[in-house]
Amino acid sequence: MAKTAAKKTARKKTTGRGRAADVTYKSYLDLPALLAAQNPISDVGNGKHAHDEMMFIVVHQTYELWFKLVLFELDRIQSVFGKKVVADADLRVVSASLARIVDIMKLLVRQLDIMETMTPLDFLDFRHVFRSASGFQSLQFRELEVRLGLAQKDRVGYDGKSFENFLPADDRKTLHAIMKKTALIDQLDRWLSRTPFVEMSGFSFWKTYRKAVADMIEGDRKTVKASRKMPAAARAAELEKLDNMQAQFALLLDRKKGDAALPWRLSQKALQAALLIKLYRDQPALQVPHSILNSLMDLDELLALWRYRHALMAQRMLGTKMGSGGSTGHDYLAATASKHRIFHDLFTLSTFPTPRSRLPKLPRKVAEKMGFRYWDKAE
Amino acid sequence: MAKTAAKKTARKKTTGRGRAADVTYKSYLDLPALLAAQNPISDVGNGKHAHDEMMFIVVHQTYELWFKLVLFELDRIQSVFGKKVVADADLRVVSASLARIVDIMKLLVRQLDIMETMTPLDFLDFRHVFRSASGFQSLQFRELEVRLGLAQKDRVGYDGKSFENFLPADDRKTLHAIMKKTALIDQLDRWLSRTPFVEMSGFSFWKTYRKAVADMIEGDRKTVKASRKMPAAARAAELEKLDNMQAQFALLLDRKKGDAALPWRLSQKALQAALLIKLYRDQPALQVPHSILNSLMDLDELLALWRYRHALMAQRMLGTKMGSGGSTGHDYLAATASKHRIFHDLFTLSTFPTPRSRLPKLPRKVAEKMGFRYWDKAE
Amino acid sequence: MAKTAAKKTARKKTTGRGRAADVTYKSYLDLPALLAAQNPISDVGNGKHAHDEMMFIVVHQTYELWFKLVLFELDRIQSVFGKKVVADADLRVVSASLARIVDIMKLLVRQLDIMETMTPLDFLDFRHVFRSASGFQSLQFRELEVRLGLAQKDRVGYDGKSFENFLPADDRKTLHAIMKKTALIDQLDRWLSRTPFVEMSGFSFWKTYRKAVADMIEGDRKTVKASRKMPAAARAAELEKLDNMQAQFALLLDRKKGDAALPWRLSQKALQAALLIKLYRDQPALQVPHSILNSLMDLDELLALWRYRHALMAQRMLGTKMGSGGSTGHDYLAATASKHRIFHDLFTLSTFPTPRSRLPKLPRKVAEKMGFRYWDKAE
Amino acid sequence: MAKTAAKKTARKKTTGRGRAADVTYKSYLDLPALLAAQNPISDVGNGKHAHDEMMFIVVHQTYELWFKLVLFELDRIQSVFGKKVVADADLRVVSASLARIVDIMKLLVRQLDIMETMTPLDFLDFRHVFRSASGFQSLQFRELEVRLGLAQKDRVGYDGKSFENFLPADDRKTLHAIMKKTALIDQLDRWLSRTPFVEMSGFSFWKTYRKAVADMIEGDRKTVKASRKMPAAARAAELEKLDNMQAQFALLLDRKKGDAALPWRLSQKALQAALLIKLYRDQPALQVPHSILNSLMDLDELLALWRYRHALMAQRMLGTKMGSGGSTGHDYLAATASKHRIFHDLFTLSTFPTPRSRLPKLPRKVAEKMGFRYWDKAE
Repeated sequence: MAKTAAKKTARKKTTGRGRAADVTYKSYLDLPALLAAQNPISDVGNGKHAHDEMMFIVVHQTYELWFKLVLFELDRIQSVFGKKVVADADLRVVSASLARIVDIMKLLVRQLDIMETMTPLDFLDFRHVFRSASGFQSLQFRELEVRLGLAQKDRVGYDGKSFENFLPADDRKTLHAIMKKTALIDQLDRWLSRTPFVEMSGFSFWKTYRKAVADMIEGDRKTVKASRKMPAAARAAELEKLDNMQAQFALLLDRKKGDAALPWRLSQKALQAALLIKLYRDQPALQVPHSILNSLMDLDELLALWRYRHALMAQRMLGTKMGSGGSTGHDYLAATASKHRIFHDLFTLSTFPTPRSRLPKLPRKVAEKMGFRYWDKAE
Repeated sequence: MAKTAAKKTARKKTTGRGRAADVTYKSYLDLPALLAAQNPISDVGNGKHAHDEMMFIVVHQTYELWFKLVLFELDRIQSVFGKKVVADADLRVVSASLARIVDIMKLLVRQLDIMETMTPLDFLDFRHVFRSASGFQSLQFRELEVRLGLAQKDRVGYDGKSFENFLPADDRKTLHAIMKKTALIDQLDRWLSRTPFVEMSGFSFWKTYRKAVADMIEGDRKTVKASRKMPAAARAAELEKLDNMQAQFALLLDRKKGDAALPWRLSQKALQAALLIKLYRDQPALQVPHSILNSLMDLDELLALWRYRHALMAQRMLGTKMGSGGSTGHDYLAATASKHRIFHDLFTLSTFPTPRSRLPKLPRKVAEKMGFRYWDKAE
Repeated sequence: MAKTAAKKTARKKTTGRGRAADVTYKSYLDLPALLAAQNPISDVGNGKHAHDEMMFIVVHQTYELWFKLVLFELDRIQSVFGKKVVADADLRVVSASLARIVDIMKLLVRQLDIMETMTPLDFLDFRHVFRSASGFQSLQFRELEVRLGLAQKDRVGYDGKSFENFLPADDRKTLHAIMKKTALIDQLDRWLSRTPFVEMSGFSFWKTYRKAVADMIEGDRKTVKASRKMPAAARAAELEKLDNMQAQFALLLDRKKGDAALPWRLSQKALQAALLIKLYRDQPALQVPHSILNSLMDLDELLALWRYRHALMAQRMLGTKMGSGGSTGHDYLAATASKHRIFHDLFTLSTFPTPRSRLPKLPRKVAEKMGFRYWDKAE
Repeated sequence: MAKTAAKKTARKKTTGRGRAADVTYKSYLDLPALLAAQNPISDVGNGKHAHDEMMFIVVHQTYELWFKLVLFELDRIQSVFGKKVVADADLRVVSASLARIVDIMKLLVRQLDIMETMTPLDFLDFRHVFRSASGFQSLQFRELEVRLGLAQKDRVGYDGKSFENFLPADDRKTLHAIMKKTALIDQLDRWLSRTPFVEMSGFSFWKTYRKAVADMIEGDRKTVKASRKMPAAARAAELEKLDNMQAQFALLLDRKKGDAALPWRLSQKALQAALLIKLYRDQPALQVPHSILNSLMDLDELLALWRYRHALMAQRMLGTKMGSGGSTGHDYLAATASKHRIFHDLFTLSTFPTPRSRLPKLPRKVAEKMGFRYWDKAE
């Protein structure tokens, strides 16, 4: 990306501030190039293209434009999180860029409505022209997945192979370079791990919290045991689930284990901080971090939703026929919806929080640290 | 439903046309009753309710109001399809009611956005108050599923039991009565089976069409065999899939088999008609039927999407904890998204259609029958 | 447009069906050109661009891509309506293209959400770079307005001048050529005017209908006179309005007047046909025409809504400052929302229809003509 | 509202935490009452109601349910702003409630889509039954307007009268009581006016800022004068506009004038604070206040958009006929869209901000005050 952008800027360097007067709507948006890029190749006779091919091209091109913007916003987010110290003043732009990405993702889910104004029969008129091509090969979307933190080993296999095999050689190379950089989830881990309030002298948060969660799990256990409607097998399954939850929770709090032994992508320290942020999100210093975690969950969910709608559409268009590019369409996409989750650990945390009424109260000293300095004189 | 409505009308019978002058906005919408029905029961101390419980109640109540409207539109659709002869003039209201249902379903998917303005922690403040209650118990939603045609045997098991066990006795009785009536999918089957153009003297459509599809499958087979990128195992799997498709197609056209032996919910005759409608949808007599089939696919897809978003939300709110009502939340909901499909056969048809260029042309006589009478003199 | 497209096809003519095997996702969508067309020109120091300029560019470019698709769908619609005889079989694609345009317009209104993730302050960082450029200069949007039928004389003045003065010379020329072609509203007029059922031997529809409407207006007049809550001045105004309505209605039915003397853009004959279609839309032959009229009203409304949201956004971004391109922003846009209505006459028709219960019944002979031929033998 | 709620709670007081086990989905949502409240009263013969009346009722009832929730969220917001000192820790819930209201308003705009699945002709079938009733009489919507801060004197006249005359006596009384309470805009004014950073010893912000804005206006003036494309009359108008802007800006900064003499609803002090928040929104202490101001602008814009879409719908349904309730429909609604703006002053501020590059830098001491205490030791 970066390189291409540099080249572009060079090409355009004559257009500086001094030349602004000459800028027209058309030149500013490079419309001659943009509007010449829709070139249907189907042939339904008499030199005509299949009517819906134009729609198909435009929908995909708008997707690519939005992906470009999503990656651009991700640049800003990663640049802030990549700094040695993440300044509080920089968190607003992180929050703003995430909110924008979330809104774009909502639009992209909605946008599939337009694709579905095409019927399967209309699609058949030109489906064959790109038999070996597929949205599967979108480099920008792959870049997005990689930069957010989707690990190669967590990917759903595709016809028994890694998706990389289906990319052109240069794209594969570009992607490999991107894989070497720190992903957002790892930057997030580092940032969370440094949250200052998790361990503070004399702060017995974890001890109190541990008890609150243990009580909650115990309560659930009693409810299950007392449930007359639940068949024996289901009851056993539920109780086992509670045992697992308790075990997971022990892992979360047990400081001796190394992160590699834990079932999470995020480190123990980062998870503890995330939990603290969720629980005490009303504290001034945690309000913006909390909204950032929330947006990351929104994003994760919207990516899953987009994949799922995509899967439904594939089924509608193709039935059980091969997807374009040789994929198995619906099944592959539906599998990615449930497995390509990146910020999944943030959802898992919902297992632990306790009702606010049982929340251990923050010691006054700790709470004060989470406030603004401007009160210092006012008080 | 019907009974309640009757009772209501009785209660209100003083409000006839003659009294219209006395109707106010408030009385017309029965606002005193409507706005008194939001009664939070949580207790977070000091006699206060958990703040987000009101939102939770309102969101669910709006869902129930929309479900009522969806069932009401379904009444009109089923009443038309329930007639001995379905008049062409009645198809417009079927089409209009379906379009309205589809638009409502889109709103219901969108509406989950508002539920997600609640964080898991906020939910924990009052989740316990309805531990044994759950959206799972919505009688109207169950009615919708049953009336569309979701068969009991096709339902995802729930804690190893039928969902009925979780309904109050009177609701179960109501639902059983509804199950005895003809579902929409069966009415659709009957209507499609009577489509007049499928078999017409001298019309060799099926013969020609059979050849067109066979050619298409053969083409796909060659492509797979020639694909250098596909590993041997994947190639074998694809070829097997094509064999299955060919076998399925044989089933669709083979008149000797009984419907019970076929892998579809719709009868062979109905499927053939649906295929004809899809292929020749430009013919005047098939334009509205085609839009009806399209809307049914939209509806099926939107129900799946709604279930899936619901599943994602359950995961966000509850992590891996028990869902309310004892359900396992996310997993159950995600399973229903992929398995509770009712008009699935209409999607399967997308396997068969051929590119328009290979479509057998309708004989002039048959095409004429599909036109309007008003041309008779004009020509 | 046409010319450019031709040139493009020429440039790409090597990409025929035979070469489909070489098509990749990237080449098919011309991604190298597409993704090189975002070139911010602002300078906030250190060689950096204002962050939100990229978003600004991408949003506008997606608008232009969608406009291209809307114009493409309009091509198909106008090509059908431009034929000597509009075949019933062709109405489905008109209806499908209109539905797609309507769905795209909904997306475009929704898409402004993303623009509004930018704050006015962010906009100020780069607003000056295109001072003389403006969305006002979008040739494609102007083409859309002209081809739908927005007449030059009905346009809101812009800084006391025609908008044309702000277009580059070549765009102005292109637009003038488009103005010379028949607009959709004129094609619609011709099509409606030929509706066969408006005048049929022995059909006394107009006579009966005239009486039904007269009765309705008289009823309204009585209600106004009896309204105790209405102050005298308001009552007088309402009565005057009813008088005007009655006068308008007389114009609609009076065959002697020429169209030039009438207050509508559509001809008297076309309006009468539109009214007939609305009233008897359940008749098979009128179902699809009715849905076409409905979509045109949707489109008209969505264009107004888009302009209005645009006006609100301008106000938010610019306050009362000059819009880009020298426009007065909010006020100009808000004025176009209410005045640049093209299918306004279809809305006016809502003044006339009568409750269904008072609808004159169609003579059996006329109704029969509106049905399909396939019943001929069945009966 | 409050009273009714109290009564309700009394009626339900048996349902406490101890009884939670008995709660069912049906009882929790009070479905028997909720689903009995849809009672069409039209009569199209044979004891049948007009089909679309049910949709009409359900749409309005869901609006009223959402309004109830919006008012409930407003309760929380106003309770925070009503406190003597607004704690920073409470701003998160203000921000969350505002975000929820904004999302609900988006849904309400979207929801009109469903109303528009009704054609004008369908509406005519039952429009007469509530001739004197109208959405105009929604007490909850009036309460919303009043509590946000729409002043009686700023309202668009309605048939030459105040809208109050159309309300039932008890509703009018309820509304008068609400009018006596402090509106949100006045609470906002008080909160903004107390922003601590506006005046700080040695802080010459206003002086520097005044110069920056003056420079910007001067720049615009030069551009206008140099614009060759602008006709003389338009140029004169633009220059006059710039003069007005400069005069307005003088008002904003001139400390001698009293607020009553100023053209704004918000006080001079509040506006200055709002400007400071906008300009230095990246400072930790201003991030959440900035997002609150943004949400208020969203809300104001969405209310206008909702009114405008409503106006378009009225035109479609009724043409130029009288609206229900005697209103003139479209024109009244369109007028309220542009005139019933409550947080308009926040939009006006967009006139003043300067490009970031010219922003006076905050003195280190002031900036420090806007940070968190937890850094104190870290540094």
